[in-house]
Amino acid sequence: SFANLDIQRERRIGFPEVIYGEGKTAEQIAEIVKRLQSHSDRILATRIEANKAEKIQSLLPDIDLHYHADARSITWLRKPIDKKENGYIAVVCAGTSDIPVAEEAAITAEMMGNHVLRINDVGVAGIHRLFARLEDIRKANVVVVAAGMEGALTSVVGGLVDVPVIAVPTSVGYGAHYDGLAALLSMLNACAPGITVVNIDNGFGAGYAAGLINERMYKEET
Amino acid sequence: SFANLDIQRERRIGFPEVIYGEGKTAEQIAEIVKRLQSHSDRILATRIEANKAEKIQSLLPDIDLHYHADARSITWLRKPIDKKENGYIAVVCAGTSDIPVAEEAAITAEMMGNHVLRINDVGVAGIHRLFARLEDIRKANVVVVAAGMEGALTSVVGGLVDVPVIAVPTSVGYGAHYDGLAALLSMLNACAPGITVVNIDNGFGAGYAAGLINERMYKEET
Amino acid sequence: SFANLDIQRERRIGFPEVIYGEGKTAEQIAEIVKRLQSHSDRILATRIEANKAEKIQSLLPDIDLHYHADARSITWLRKPIDKKENGYIAVVCAGTSDIPVAEEAAITAEMMGNHVLRINDVGVAGIHRLFARLEDIRKANVVVVAAGMEGALTSVVGGLVDVPVIAVPTSVGYGAHYDGLAALLSMLNACAPGITVVNIDNGFGAGYAAGLINERMYKEET
Amino acid sequence: SFANLDIQRERRIGFPEVIYGEGKTAEQIAEIVKRLQSHSDRILATRIEANKAEKIQSLLPDIDLHYHADARSITWLRKPIDKKENGYIAVVCAGTSDIPVAEEAAITAEMMGNHVLRINDVGVAGIHRLFARLEDIRKANVVVVAAGMEGALTSVVGGLVDVPVIAVPTSVGYGAHYDGLAALLSMLNACAPGITVVNIDNGFGAGYAAGLINERMYKEET
Amino acid sequence: SFANLDIQRERRIGFPEVIYGEGKTAEQIAEIVKRLQSHSDRILATRIEANKAEKIQSLLPDIDLHYHADARSITWLRKPIDKKENGYIAVVCAGTSDIPVAEEAAITAEMMGNHVLRINDVGVAGIHRLFARLEDIRKANVVVVAAGMEGALTSVVGGLVDVPVIAVPTSVGYGAHYDGLAALLSMLNACAPGITVVNIDNGFGAGYAAGLINERMYKEET
Amino acid sequence: SFANLDIQRERRIGFPEVIYGEGKTAEQIAEIVKRLQSHSDRILATRIEANKAEKIQSLLPDIDLHYHADARSITWLRKPIDKKENGYIAVVCAGTSDIPVAEEAAITAEMMGNHVLRINDVGVAGIHRLFARLEDIRKANVVVVAAGMEGALTSVVGGLVDVPVIAVPTSVGYGAHYDGLAALLSMLNACAPGITVVNIDNGFGAGYAAGLINERMYKEET
Amino acid sequence: SFANLDIQRERRIGFPEVIYGEGKTAEQIAEIVKRLQSHSDRILATRIEANKAEKIQSLLPDIDLHYHADARSITWLRKPIDKKENGYIAVVCAGTSDIPVAEEAAITAEMMGNHVLRINDVGVAGIHRLFARLEDIRKANVVVVAAGMEGALTSVVGGLVDVPVIAVPTSVGYGAHYDGLAALLSMLNACAPGITVVNIDNGFGAGYAAGLINERMYKEET
Amino acid sequence: SFANLDIQRERRIGFPEVIYGEGKTAEQIAEIVKRLQSHSDRILATRIEANKAEKIQSLLPDIDLHYHADARSITWLRKPIDKKENGYIAVVCAGTSDIPVAEEAAITAEMMGNHVLRINDVGVAGIHRLFARLEDIRKANVVVVAAGMEGALTSVVGGLVDVPVIAVPTSVGYGAHYDGLAALLSMLNACAPGITVVNIDNGFGAGYAAGLINERMYKEET
Ligand SMILES: Nc1ncnc2c1ncn2[C@@H]1O[C@H](COP(=O)(O)O)[C@@H](O)[C@H]1O
Ligand SMILES: Nc1ncnc2c1ncn2[C@@H]1O[C@H](COP(=O)(O)O)[C@@H](O)[C@H]1O
Ligand SMILES: Nc1ncnc2c1ncn2[C@@H]1O[C@H](COP(=O)(O)O)[C@@H](O)[C@H]1O
Ligand SMILES: Nc1ncnc2c1ncn2[C@@H]1O[C@H](COP(=O)(O)O)[C@@H](O)[C@H]1O
Ligand SMILES: [Mg+2]
Ligand SMILES: [Mg+2]
Ligand SMILES: [Mg+2]
Ligand SMILES: [Mg+2]
Ligand SMILES: [Mg+2]
Ligand SMILES: [Mg+2]
Ligand SMILES: [Mg+2]
Ligand SMILES: [Mg+2]
Repeated sequence: SFANLDIQRERRIGFPEVIYGEGKTAEQIAEIVKRLQSHSDRILATRIEANKAEKIQSLLPDIDLHYHADARSITWLRKPIDKKENGYIAVVCAGTSDIPVAEEAAITAEMMGNHVLRINDVGVAGIHRLFARLEDIRKANVVVVAAGMEGALTSVVGGLVDVPVIAVPTSVGYGAHYDGLAALLSMLNACAPGITVVNIDNGFGAGYAAGLINERMYKEET
Repeated sequence: SFANLDIQRERRIGFPEVIYGEGKTAEQIAEIVKRLQSHSDRILATRIEANKAEKIQSLLPDIDLHYHADARSITWLRKPIDKKENGYIAVVCAGTSDIPVAEEAAITAEMMGNHVLRINDVGVAGIHRLFARLEDIRKANVVVVAAGMEGALTSVVGGLVDVPVIAVPTSVGYGAHYDGLAALLSMLNACAPGITVVNIDNGFGAGYAAGLINERMYKEET
Repeated sequence: SFANLDIQRERRIGFPEVIYGEGKTAEQIAEIVKRLQSHSDRILATRIEANKAEKIQSLLPDIDLHYHADARSITWLRKPIDKKENGYIAVVCAGTSDIPVAEEAAITAEMMGNHVLRINDVGVAGIHRLFARLEDIRKANVVVVAAGMEGALTSVVGGLVDVPVIAVPTSVGYGAHYDGLAALLSMLNACAPGITVVNIDNGFGAGYAAGLINERMYKEET
Repeated sequence: SFANLDIQRERRIGFPEVIYGEGKTAEQIAEIVKRLQSHSDRILATRIEANKAEKIQSLLPDIDLHYHADARSITWLRKPIDKKENGYIAVVCAGTSDIPVAEEAAITAEMMGNHVLRINDVGVAGIHRLFARLEDIRKANVVVVAAGMEGALTSVVGGLVDVPVIAVPTSVGYGAHYDGLAALLSMLNACAPGITVVNIDNGFGAGYAAGLINERMYKEET
Repeated sequence: SFANLDIQRERRIGFPEVIYGEGKTAEQIAEIVKRLQSHSDRILATRIEANKAEKIQSLLPDIDLHYHADARSITWLRKPIDKKENGYIAVVCAGTSDIPVAEEAAITAEMMGNHVLRINDVGVAGIHRLFARLEDIRKANVVVVAAGMEGALTSVVGGLVDVPVIAVPTSVGYGAHYDGLAALLSMLNACAPGITVVNIDNGFGAGYAAGLINERMYKEET
Repeated sequence: SFANLDIQRERRIGFPEVIYGEGKTAEQIAEIVKRLQSHSDRILATRIEANKAEKIQSLLPDIDLHYHADARSITWLRKPIDKKENGYIAVVCAGTSDIPVAEEAAITAEMMGNHVLRINDVGVAGIHRLFARLEDIRKANVVVVAAGMEGALTSVVGGLVDVPVIAVPTSVGYGAHYDGLAALLSMLNACAPGITVVNIDNGFGAGYAAGLINERMYKEET
Repeated sequence: SFANLDIQRERRIGFPEVIYGEGKTAEQIAEIVKRLQSHSDRILATRIEANKAEKIQSLLPDIDLHYHADARSITWLRKPIDKKENGYIAVVCAGTSDIPVAEEAAITAEMMGNHVLRINDVGVAGIHRLFARLEDIRKANVVVVAAGMEGALTSVVGGLVDVPVIAVPTSVGYGAHYDGLAALLSMLNACAPGITVVNIDNGFGAGYAAGLINERMYKEET
Repeated sequence: SFANLDIQRERRIGFPEVIYGEGKTAEQIAEIVKRLQSHSDRILATRIEANKAEKIQSLLPDIDLHYHADARSITWLRKPIDKKENGYIAVVCAGTSDIPVAEEAAITAEMMGNHVLRINDVGVAGIHRLFARLEDIRKANVVVVAAGMEGALTSVVGGLVDVPVIAVPTSVGYGAHYDGLAALLSMLNACAPGITVVNIDNGFGAGYAAGLINERMYKEET
């Protein structure tokens, strides 16, 4: 077979190998889904456009795949997940164009068994929108912030909460934005402490790290 | 002589040529000061460290030069300036390390005959400090914001006021800050409208542009 | 709804939220237009290609939208704007390829109630074209300069006028132009004082800042 | 006073403002220490070379400051910290030159009340050194990895543990390393999931985020 | 003719000019193949997509061209190659997306008369996959490692073998990967000694250099 | 000997090897001067600070070296040069800080036997200074333009003359100037035709190319 | 009209405004051609793909336009040009992919009245091809060198001739070539003296500068 | 102890850990030397300036260290090395300033038991110098080429030999050279096949890889 799947991954690090859809054909993804299914109870595939998703679904008529259009992701669950009841992860985004990345983070965290609260379009150009939701953000166990442009939302949130903040720069912007580089640098240089950063548009990575953190809390607790 | 001074500049654009001190010897600056003095009633020289300033003062014992340590600038006035009585320019900065740049802007604007209100160390890591001063900022005719790190203060201010905001990124930061590039990109990509940007550490340019704007308002008014 | 519109923006900073069309579908833009219409008397939507504009117009047959092809922008006005009678903003551009950006600036300023004088294709390769229009530029309250290539027009204009100059680098160029980076750096380093800069191709931002400045002058005056 | 300290920070986000020593004089740092002391029971000051530290200590003879040479940091505690007894944070570094950054992280986490296990000089050029310590790393609640050069250690650790990993690129390297940029990009692109990144050489930020995570776990638990 | 083929190349450096297919039309490639055929017994053409390959084959019905889909390469041999019997070159890759580049290297080395062992999808996120194949890698005369993302596989392999390692960064990745730049920098800065690097996606160059090295060994031996 | 001098250079390309002084000790330069002297009638050494020049002169008391402080260059001539009487090269610079680079160009051209006209400090911030000298520039056979900041002077000159223009960007500037990169990009993208560019601060290269051009004209003529 | 043509250009700098075809429609180009025709005897339009050229020709059936496919350029001449009989310009290129840029240079120089000698595909990978043509290159009055990849041909040529060399980097390459940046930097840093550089792919600029130089020689001569 | 030496390295990859002297104190280096001495018969320490070397020697009076000034390296051998008698490695450099890097490569290869032929200062500006030595270069088993500026020497050598070429870019250059980046890109894009590249100024890495290759040949042979 063309792929050497990391089948032990779930045992080793707690979550099975996630399928990165970009650059793979529908056929390849369908094959990997089939193989993963015999080793795991949950499957996550990201970066899949709507028409490719449809094709995958038609290739696997017997598997009950769920396509999340906003997150451009496919999920499959053998049985419903037991969500951890130790609170939630807040996934916050700055503008409507950042939603796909934020949703990728949210779906990832949910697949890991976390409750997620979504808070969209609260960028600093109209900062009252953020303050209107601040209490909900403060109550979260971890906060993911997705933002493009200059990514200033991250620093403002970081200065107002006492929980870990995971920043994901998005490629939303133009001109001297350089496909997310401006937001990335902004987040790496955020003046508020407690912020860590993942790669540009890496909603999966942000959701995954948030999930790991919340999971540890849960393990500790129980 | 080594320099071909732009003597007509005051007549042409309203303010005499400003001496950029970096890379010039005390002797050269002293000579330029003497020559400018015969054509203008006010002199501004920037980017001059304390010991160079002292040397210049000792070379020109008969000229009453004033050295502004924070702004690393020298000023001279034949007679007190008549300040424009149409309100003020707010010069806001994010952290204590941004003060030299903010002061360069403030002194420049004052030399152009403007009232200036200084508001220091109100960066977004502790955003309540900004809100505590918001009314004063809102009442200004123009706002200059100097910030290093990720420069998020600019976007927050830009979203809260209805006057022109001039952003000056500072080279304050480290690592992936690249001597102010992170802040510069952040400001160019600010999500709030009405913000324009000058070069990194260019307090002079920010103060000058702010002064020009306030001056036009004054002219219109009178 | 997918978008959390900043409805208070007009009250807070004097102009309603502007729709950035790139990356939004005709349907999304039409929906936002409808919602904004109930809160404001004027709507501006930028970065909209001709065919998308047509689609939006057909989705909103009852709303009298105006499409400006050069500026790739849509405007809507409940009633004609009262233009401020305190002079005009000059919008100058270097080459014919810079016109879309210049027009975006001009339309934005007009929507804010300013008179605009357009001066196109006066780049420094044939500098006599600029001098032929210099008196008109000098009489403006604010000057916007849009230029690609090496952006030298900005410095030349900046050295000849005593009003604020807002420079907008365009992505017009090739090779080591890097989609406008060469022009951006050139403008940030302009040797003439009084120049501030907006992001590459950000005609909207330049027009908006120019509008804010001219507006303040007007307020002062009246 | 020159600085507008964020005195409410401890109340708001759980830890007092940390003094960033670079670019501040011994006198300025001493003054800030004195002011912070009246609001908090613990003080942390980073990026302070040995001779500056000595000068600060001599300026504050009555305050029992502790200087950590490897971490280039000063700490002060009114009373011993009660460490959280829910396990430890592992701070791992690749080469001996990465120790100062790793130590800054370790000291920061300790000041927040965490137990820290230090594991130095286990870079992938001799990967058996890492495997020799793997069990201890796996038992940590959070792992900080500091590495320069190509930062490959981060990916290897990330693929072997099921806890959050915080990567801090160091500026250790030469040539096409670009003061840590190579390591930074490497970490942002790490193929193992669950890794988040802080700015180059930002040991403080890594330790702080690790501390926040461990703290949440502890809170949950108790 | 449009091309000035380097016909003496085989005599001078031991291998005929290789056709770089990108940017050439099927007709141009077919013509070059015909001309090379009269000077050499083997032809290699790289960077040719499947449909262009088909067109070339139909233009040259009398020539027995072989298309390698994974390697996007065409080969032709007048008579079977005598492979050197002094061992093999290992071509290792990190993920399935790196296979095209790895295959280009493998085919190139085979065309030079080397035995090649392919080891795919053994990236460090699941490092046990690499250790499972380590003995085979260690027995090679030269190792080629193709990897995208952060390219950490190179450093790990480099630290475990005592033969020359040739690293080829691939453009596989996203965000701050910059089309392979992250992997390139990572490999240039690899902490293990004995690694040399070729251009991004340059499978041909890696395979060629590996072939040259193995060939020299063979020559020495015989 | 450590250096393998290109003794045939004068015969091959018309001018002897020039000594690049940066990074060489006074002793090394002195030794090279001695060796060159036996093969050529003229010697040029550039990038030599005043104190190193003095040391070289004291090491070679019998050789009549001439030090040009502005150009940071040493010259030696066995006998006076016969200058070509076919007109002159104009060397123009934008600001006083550009003079060292302009002088390096001028001295180089003079050593090649050209008449040089120097025109300093005529940058576009005060463009009337340029127009005041335009006739002299237009009469030149070739024009060298040295400028830092945004380098706009090059484009303006290029648009006004019908002779070849050689642009040399200088590292004069700060912030987003990047040691001359802003000026370099500006010159490469100059909108006026007929401009070619040399490396940042490469006054020697500009003067040499100008000299070659003027020389060819002279040869043609005679 | 949309364009403000620089009609005086031919009188001012000796050659009429050249039409840069990229980004202009066939209709726009046709209109400009018509307008230029009434002011000049020769027209050059560059960067025009074959199908656009055909459309322009069909829009202007009465004008005898000539399309040069390799150079992607259109020329028109009212009457045959009198070529200068003082020798020729050599246009040399490294690989077959560089031919379009080299041809743009050659056509431009020919339109200015110069004889041009084309020497293609003599890159340094097979340096004997260059030496085979060296005498012809040495006899030229000016040499244009177009090269992509690492651009080494420029330095080799520069070290072998005593005439001005104009280097034009092409965007031919891949990976860490960055669309010609590698070749551009290589040429700016060429170790041979007498080389000047134009923008990436700017064949027009190289040909124009070469033409200016040869023209001056001719004027001097006659 | 502060360092976790990779003591098994010699057994694992055939050569003991090399001490990278930059950033280490004389005391630290002396201590590492002492510890390595008990595990190996040869020690190599690089990047050590003359005065640091002296200090190390005085700290270890009983150990017979040899300092190589040109290579800035220290070596120690318990007994003379048996050089492999299968030919030599050629170490070629472009200019005298590249000698330190070339020497680091040469010393490293010699410490691995290889014969080395040094060929200095044969850069392409005077290419006859290279041809004069070509036969010696062609007879080598491997060639190392160290070059700064535009690094063109690498491509020329690569096109003339049929053995592996290892290119090491040096930071020699100025302006748009970017501390070796121009040479690095040039080498990665070299048009001749068979060239691999190491990090900027990494003479050690080049010598080590060359040594590994030559060693394999020797092993094969015997
Ligand atoms: N602090 C400053 N930052 C940036 N530009 C300045 C500054 N001070 C002066 N300048 C500019 O530098 C010009 C003088 O440059 P120079 O001829 O080198 O003295 C002035 O006319 C200003 O445009
Ligand atoms: N070593 C460090 N590295 C990075 N950031 C730090 C470090 N130490 C302190 N900081 C941050 O700098 C802030 C204080 O900056 P300042 O107001 O300039 O003293 C602190 O609140 C921290 O967020
Ligand atoms: N192929 C080309 N490459 C670079 N610049 C060109 C080219 N063709 C024309 N130009 C320049 O573009 C100018 C015309 O630009 P425009 O006014 O946009 O048509 C001409 O005067 C030339 O300076
Ligand atoms: N001159 C050099 N250039 C690059 N890398 C070197 C050099 N000398 C030693 N090294 C590498 O640095 C490693 C030792 O690094 P360290 O543990 O910091 O002393 C050695 O094993 C080599 O792989
Ligand atoms: Mg919004
Ligand atoms: Mg502060
Ligand atoms: Mg035009
Ligand atoms: Mg070590
Ligand atoms: Mg895989
Ligand atoms: Mg001046
Ligand atoms: Mg070819
Ligand atoms: Mg030399």
